[in-house]
Amino acid sequence: MKKKYNKHPLDFIFHPKNIAVVGVSSNENDGGHFKALLNSGFDKKHTIYPVNPKMTKINNFTCYPSILECPTDVDYVISRLPAPLVPELVKQCIEKNVKTLHLFTAGFNETGDKNREKLGEEVLNMTKKAGIRVIGPNCMGLYVPGEQISFTEEAPPEESGDVFVASQSGVLAAEFIFRLASRGIRFSKVVSFGNGADLSVSDFLEYAANDNETKYVLSYIEGINNGKAFLKSLKKCASVKPTIIIKGGQTEEGARAASSHTGSLAGSAGVFESLCKQFGVILVDSIEEAQDIIIAMKTSLANIKNNNVISISSGGGNSVLSSDAISRSGLVLPMINKAVQEELRSFIPMAGTSIYNPIDFGVGANQVNLLKKLFRTLSKNKKVNCFFYSYGLMPWMDNKNTKANTLSSVGKFNIRNIFGKEQFKNESFDLLLSTFKSLQKTLKLPIVIVHRSRIQGSLDEVNHLACLALENGVPFFDSSERASKAITKIIKWQKAR
Amino acid sequence: MKKKYNKHPLDFIFHPKNIAVVGVSSNENDGGHFKALLNSGFDKKHTIYPVNPKMTKINNFTCYPSILECPTDVDYVISRLPAPLVPELVKQCIEKNVKTLHLFTAGFNETGDKNREKLGEEVLNMTKKAGIRVIGPNCMGLYVPGEQISFTEEAPPEESGDVFVASQSGVLAAEFIFRLASRGIRFSKVVSFGNGADLSVSDFLEYAANDNETKYVLSYIEGINNGKAFLKSLKKCASVKPTIIIKGGQTEEGARAASSHTGSLAGSAGVFESLCKQFGVILVDSIEEAQDIIIAMKTSLANIKNNNVISISSGGGNSVLSSDAISRSGLVLPMINKAVQEELRSFIPMAGTSIYNPIDFGVGANQVNLLKKLFRTLSKNKKVNCFFYSYGLMPWMDNKNTKANTLSSVGKFNIRNIFGKEQFKNESFDLLLSTFKSLQKTLKLPIVIVHRSRIQGSLDEVNHLACLALENGVPFFDSSERASKAITKIIKWQKAR
Repeated sequence: MKKKYNKHPLDFIFHPKNIAVVGVSSNENDGGHFKALLNSGFDKKHTIYPVNPKMTKINNFTCYPSILECPTDVDYVISRLPAPLVPELVKQCIEKNVKTLHLFTAGFNETGDKNREKLGEEVLNMTKKAGIRVIGPNCMGLYVPGEQISFTEEAPPEESGDVFVASQSGVLAAEFIFRLASRGIRFSKVVSFGNGADLSVSDFLEYAANDNETKYVLSYIEGINNGKAFLKSLKKCASVKPTIIIKGGQTEEGARAASSHTGSLAGSAGVFESLCKQFGVILVDSIEEAQDIIIAMKTSLANIKNNNVISISSGGGNSVLSSDAISRSGLVLPMINKAVQEELRSFIPMAGTSIYNPIDFGVGANQVNLLKKLFRTLSKNKKVNCFFYSYGLMPWMDNKNTKANTLSSVGKFNIRNIFGKEQFKNESFDLLLSTFKSLQKTLKLPIVIVHRSRIQGSLDEVNHLACLALENGVPFFDSSERASKAITKIIKWQKAR
Repeated sequence: MKKKYNKHPLDFIFHPKNIAVVGVSSNENDGGHFKALLNSGFDKKHTIYPVNPKMTKINNFTCYPSILECPTDVDYVISRLPAPLVPELVKQCIEKNVKTLHLFTAGFNETGDKNREKLGEEVLNMTKKAGIRVIGPNCMGLYVPGEQISFTEEAPPEESGDVFVASQSGVLAAEFIFRLASRGIRFSKVVSFGNGADLSVSDFLEYAANDNETKYVLSYIEGINNGKAFLKSLKKCASVKPTIIIKGGQTEEGARAASSHTGSLAGSAGVFESLCKQFGVILVDSIEEAQDIIIAMKTSLANIKNNNVISISSGGGNSVLSSDAISRSGLVLPMINKAVQEELRSFIPMAGTSIYNPIDFGVGANQVNLLKKLFRTLSKNKKVNCFFYSYGLMPWMDNKNTKANTLSSVGKFNIRNIFGKEQFKNESFDLLLSTFKSLQKTLKLPIVIVHRSRIQGSLDEVNHLACLALENGVPFFDSSERASKAITKIIKWQKAR
């Protein structure tokens, strides 16, 4: 077991045997890292040392006056102290052979204050000399489900996954976890590293590139401290794994915000963009876009090479606006060839339908044979690289559970869903997925489910459908716009490789 | 009372005394216009005549074999017959002095079939000669809450409002109603007019311009039949009321879809855009954007003239990405002047905050005095035309109702909300709104609430907050992107007037 983690010089950071939380709050309701580690069960596997000179006990744990009193050496220290107290803590860390110091503590170079900048330099000089690696300052630290380490007291998934996240923002790190998890994605390691004064994005990208657990790499970056190391690690990472970057501070205003947030110099947006293009990095603007790219990568869209979409929906106005959106993104809705048109007209009535792409024809999940006939016929078109299939309740259907003349209709849902663990019963969607799964296999073409966004009711049921789709390798997106945007980027990425 | 409706030659269309539904379904579960009219209570005010030769009774109503057997003349006929039977129906309409024929019936010129096109022409020649006005074909018809007319059997709002909608798509007409209603907007009249063979968008825009009930005009258009009449009515309408247009078929692919949908020739996107600019029409791409523009128009943003935004949020990474989004939209985050910075620093601590715009400082709804101090101080900045205030639960807070270090936190919600009729209890949000309402008045600056989008839980509570905000004249948007986009368009529109 141990060997698995013994391959990279930075492995120790993600696999501490004990963690001391220094400056643990005396107020039980305060939350923070101690509570987060308790909730994730770190103490069941390893040891937590709460540290606060004002208490002797907390939640049945001995509370130590300082780390010096901890009964063993300490692997990993989380500092929740005010910045001016950190140099003293570092001295103690040296005595206790601490390997990693995570500075949740903020108030160093990001303040723009000269004295605080000096304080930060002092701390860094001390840790460097002692060989202690620093995560932060000004960050949330680690979420490593395999080691039951978490920085958020809310309940992130217990299971490990294959996505590595390195984020300069703690709030965004948490958003990555919860947004992507709600759509069925799981994580190998997530690190919020804030100002990145010692361990920086370069270190984490380099680590992720080598990490066996990791298949996809996602990073939120505000600024780069060491350009040369960054270029090297970014290039390496993107050459071995799909690497998705959100670059904060691409505008002047955003750059100012980044400077105040993590003391980062954002650099030129143009230079960053061309670097990403050159290295095969996928640059995105938002968490939603990152989520969509990963969903595409993990389903049948990973290998899409060209941009011809046949779109199937019901309801003319939506077809029109959706076609406009698809086309604006750079994808193409090719004409349906005459022979295929004729075949379609043999089973699609004339009034209220269209067969020229977009296909405007209401065929529901329960009409399995008709669905198969439709997709098989359309797959004969000269130009087609993927299908869009519009799915969704009219949002106003919820209140009365009335079935209407919609393309498909979702069944009743019974149980509240948290990260897809429990079941919403929806036989028609299950049927749709099994049909699409087999069609994707036989036709060798991705079938993208485009869900019409909801305005009422519960989002949990939509998340559940999305999780099921992911399990079946069927891409599921919240709109034509988002699907098209993700696919366009995947195609560009494929072509650049 | 009657005089109110007696001002325009087309008033009769929206105020029929009786409606015959021809081709009413024998299956009670089928829904359709008869059920829609029953649900909206048209029969309590006026008379419904169901017509179907195969039945004598339906829902305790006498069902007539044809309109000829109806006991009185008929004002308004809804045809649910197949297209080939329509000419015979028109003959009967002439006998019964019908004023308006609404052809729900599809299958005319939009099919691209020559015989069907001829059939459509035949029908139109007959109605023209007889002076019968036609809505459609291929459309859902009317929703007029004041007359208890509805085309959807689901429950749209019973109350009238001030937004007029003319839509070539029935599905989108329904989406307009339910999406906007869920955010507190109500309607004077909504008409889905499909192919617009007789009554077209020109007639409806001209009508809306004159309608006392209507303050805002919204239209989804795929194509224009009579260019000259359209230009005249569009110009007139936009000169007297804010006029928002969604033009479907702006791309080649969308135009093809439009042609199949309503037989429309979409025309040149560039020409349409410059027309809109010239006439002061607000051109948008989606229902969401239309919704945002109307929310802006109905709140403190209606008169915003310049683009300097001071953005207040909590959580650095979000501040950075939000600033990037605001800046990309064309709005500006001006620097905070030195004197204002100094005043801010007198009550905002240094660590973990920023005062340079974006303001990164967590101040919650319950800290009324601190909030007021913050906004008053910031209003002294040389450049400021509006504020953004980021509001929202972390999405993952829902499951456990744990309060975390978020900017604000929403209370527990008790009752399911349909269009804001019932109360979700949320004292902290009420407090925030009353603070912002008074600040908007004293500072004469809009305060925009930017809600962080949810990924879990119920959307109904968000809709409820948005409705409350609208009632208080406080703009509420789902993201910085959407807020910025709407504001940018309002400013351009203001400048062009």
